[in-house]
Amino acid sequence: MGSTLDDTFRILIATDNHLGYAEKDPERGNDSFETFEEILKMAVEQQVDFILLGGDLFHENKPSRQCLVKCMELLRKYTFGDKPVCFEYISDPTENFKNSKNPMVNFHDPNLNVSIPVFSIHGNHDDPSGLGQFCALDMLSTAGLVNYFGRTGDLKNITISPVLLEKGTNKLALFGLSSIKDERLFRLFKENKVKMMRPKEFHDEWFNIMVVHQNHAKHGMSNYLPEAFLDPFLHLVIWGHEHECLIQPRLSADNSFHVVQPGSSVVTSFCAGEAVEKHVALLEVNNKQLFNVTPLKLETVRPFVFDDVCLADQDLDYVIGNKERNPVEEFVEEHIRGMILQAKEQLTGHPKQPKKPLIRLRVVYTDESQMFNTARFSHKFTEDVANPNEMILFKKERKEKKKNETGI
Amino acid sequence: MGSTLDDTFRILIATDNHLGYAEKDPERGNDSFETFEEILKMAVEQQVDFILLGGDLFHENKPSRQCLVKCMELLRKYTFGDKPVCFEYISDPTENFKNSKNPMVNFHDPNLNVSIPVFSIHGNHDDPSGLGQFCALDMLSTAGLVNYFGRTGDLKNITISPVLLEKGTNKLALFGLSSIKDERLFRLFKENKVKMMRPKEFHDEWFNIMVVHQNHAKHGMSNYLPEAFLDPFLHLVIWGHEHECLIQPRLSADNSFHVVQPGSSVVTSFCAGEAVEKHVALLEVNNKQLFNVTPLKLETVRPFVFDDVCLADQDLDYVIGNKERNPVEEFVEEHIRGMILQAKEQLTGHPKQPKKPLIRLRVVYTDESQMFNTARFSHKFTEDVANPNEMILFKKERKEKKKNETGI
Ligand SMILES: [Mn+2]
Ligand SMILES: [Mn+2]
Ligand SMILES: [Mn+2]
Ligand SMILES: [Mn+2]
Repeated sequence: MGSTLDDTFRILIATDNHLGYAEKDPERGNDSFETFEEILKMAVEQQVDFILLGGDLFHENKPSRQCLVKCMELLRKYTFGDKPVCFEYISDPTENFKNSKNPMVNFHDPNLNVSIPVFSIHGNHDDPSGLGQFCALDMLSTAGLVNYFGRTGDLKNITISPVLLEKGTNKLALFGLSSIKDERLFRLFKENKVKMMRPKEFHDEWFNIMVVHQNHAKHGMSNYLPEAFLDPFLHLVIWGHEHECLIQPRLSADNSFHVVQPGSSVVTSFCAGEAVEKHVALLEVNNKQLFNVTPLKLETVRPFVFDDVCLADQDLDYVIGNKERNPVEEFVEEHIRGMILQAKEQLTGHPKQPKKPLIRLRVVYTDESQMFNTARFSHKFTEDVANPNEMILFKKERKEKKKNETGI
Repeated sequence: MGSTLDDTFRILIATDNHLGYAEKDPERGNDSFETFEEILKMAVEQQVDFILLGGDLFHENKPSRQCLVKCMELLRKYTFGDKPVCFEYISDPTENFKNSKNPMVNFHDPNLNVSIPVFSIHGNHDDPSGLGQFCALDMLSTAGLVNYFGRTGDLKNITISPVLLEKGTNKLALFGLSSIKDERLFRLFKENKVKMMRPKEFHDEWFNIMVVHQNHAKHGMSNYLPEAFLDPFLHLVIWGHEHECLIQPRLSADNSFHVVQPGSSVVTSFCAGEAVEKHVALLEVNNKQLFNVTPLKLETVRPFVFDDVCLADQDLDYVIGNKERNPVEEFVEEHIRGMILQAKEQLTGHPKQPKKPLIRLRVVYTDESQMFNTARFSHKFTEDVANPNEMILFKKERKEKKKNETGI
């Protein structure tokens, strides 16, 4: 390799931290903060050059004061300090931080002692709105805690000016595209109205990263961002918004770049994608345009087990007219006990990991008589489950769908 | 004098800045910020040691993101920098900043380069509420921009631990009491449940300042803070909450201490008290327990003229049945033209002072027929007045009150 180890960029990548998620829940209210703190500690331990966030740092568009206070406390604690910043910021801050009154990376402010700069785009949860079109990241940026980039002022013509960073001979270009309505972005790409600015000098020496916060999977015709829309000069795309952790780099459909999708750091919906083991990653980049992604497992994430059962597939002993004993309820109870045991396998031993698991069982029924009162049922699990009232989701079986699934 | 000039504490005192007042008004929305910026500039020019604020820094309990961003921008611009802080903070931060997770004055944080520390109590407009009982000042404090003190955790027993500051041989104790419901505070004082902690050492060498944010004038039996409740060991009380500027120190009712009431820095209600010329002050304190207050006139405050007219005292030429011409309306129009001229006398020449005045005329009428359509009337003044829709307040004359006023 042409670069020394010291010139390798070390970047912690994470996304969708959803700070403040379920904040009022006495059991789960602190989960998002615990894991965000774990991530910041990892950044310190891994001695990264900077942290790159992919949007939805906040769950609420208007985070509570408590949420903002906790977030700022953590950022001040872990990203300020005496460790010197060992790379150069060489692009034009008035281009990268157009919306800021005082456009400047926080580590250039002589009054702040920044050790680990944080770069972030906004997501759809924390996008600008209201008087003056500010977002929560604007507050962090004004406080000097985050470098908020990738915001497009003009929603009819998007021009993305990369953040340009140099470490020794290594050159890194960060293209940020904060969350935009998928349909709108789709149309703008179709109309050729998304322009990527590239540095003229040493054109081919830059490692080009893009950070986006859009639907990755195809939902309908135009409400997602097709990988093929993105410029092939990119080397790596950090994909935010999708909560499923797909931390290993995968080649894009047309083999032109790699995609890493860190996923959310807190479970915000009870679906299979969120039950995938959660990670952030250490991204290392050197000047031969080589990169390396080391997944870092998050150990403070609350255990979550998701499962589906189809009652029609079960051999249940129905006793007609016996209201005392509902065989479905008995079956489901036993199944959930099994899931709770399974959840224990997700305990990491991290002292800050919450122990009570999240459980979601989707019960596919064929007949309404198979349903039972989940409110009463949930009482049995208040000691063992973090979301007793949301454990069970009854879903009516669709005959036609079953057909399609078997390929007929 | 026993102290050299260099050891004299120089403090900028201000209160009730009401940032974000009328924020959505295109004409007046920036007034509160302009004057706050003027105050911060004064602090820099006057080379003060610190700024002391008396509450209601924010107008809204939940300031908009725009408001918080503007406030933080200004604080970072004017209170951070290389000027060294030339006094010592010697009290216990865990006592002074009990509610903070990281109790510390901002100028002791090695990662922040603070030039002019700001100390503030909260007012009734920006008091703690909601999840976790945080207030807007908590956000500023967590961002390292303000030292938020004087918050009482226990509302049944108040103990006030002063912020203790030393500059050379000068000793300054700052007792902060953030806003509490007047009735509650009245009762607590009556029940002897407000305790002032005093430093044991050099007991008599301290200059004791108290900052409060309560009703000063007697409104009813118990919804104000009687001066006589405050400890006579105090030398000076900075009174927040009352918006009338009474900047010259006045002796308390029982001659035991002086009171300075800076008043608000932006007009938030159209009353006579707010029409008094607005000031902040430079407070100088030296170790002989002498102090000096230099009023600093605020030159960016929008001109405001308040007046009363009693129609019964006017010789108006009523033409019964003539709906084309209302003599009251003509009279009022002329009177307001006079007030607008009068407002020009308040122009200071400061480039940031808004020129369109605030006008409030209270029209005391005896008969409903004297009233006219103010909505239509206000159109004539949209070019000349900042609050055309709120210029006129009709008030029915009360016969009994008139009697009392004449002393009968
Ligand atoms: Mn999202
Ligand atoms: Mn998200
Ligand atoms: Mn006030
Ligand atoms: Mn007040």
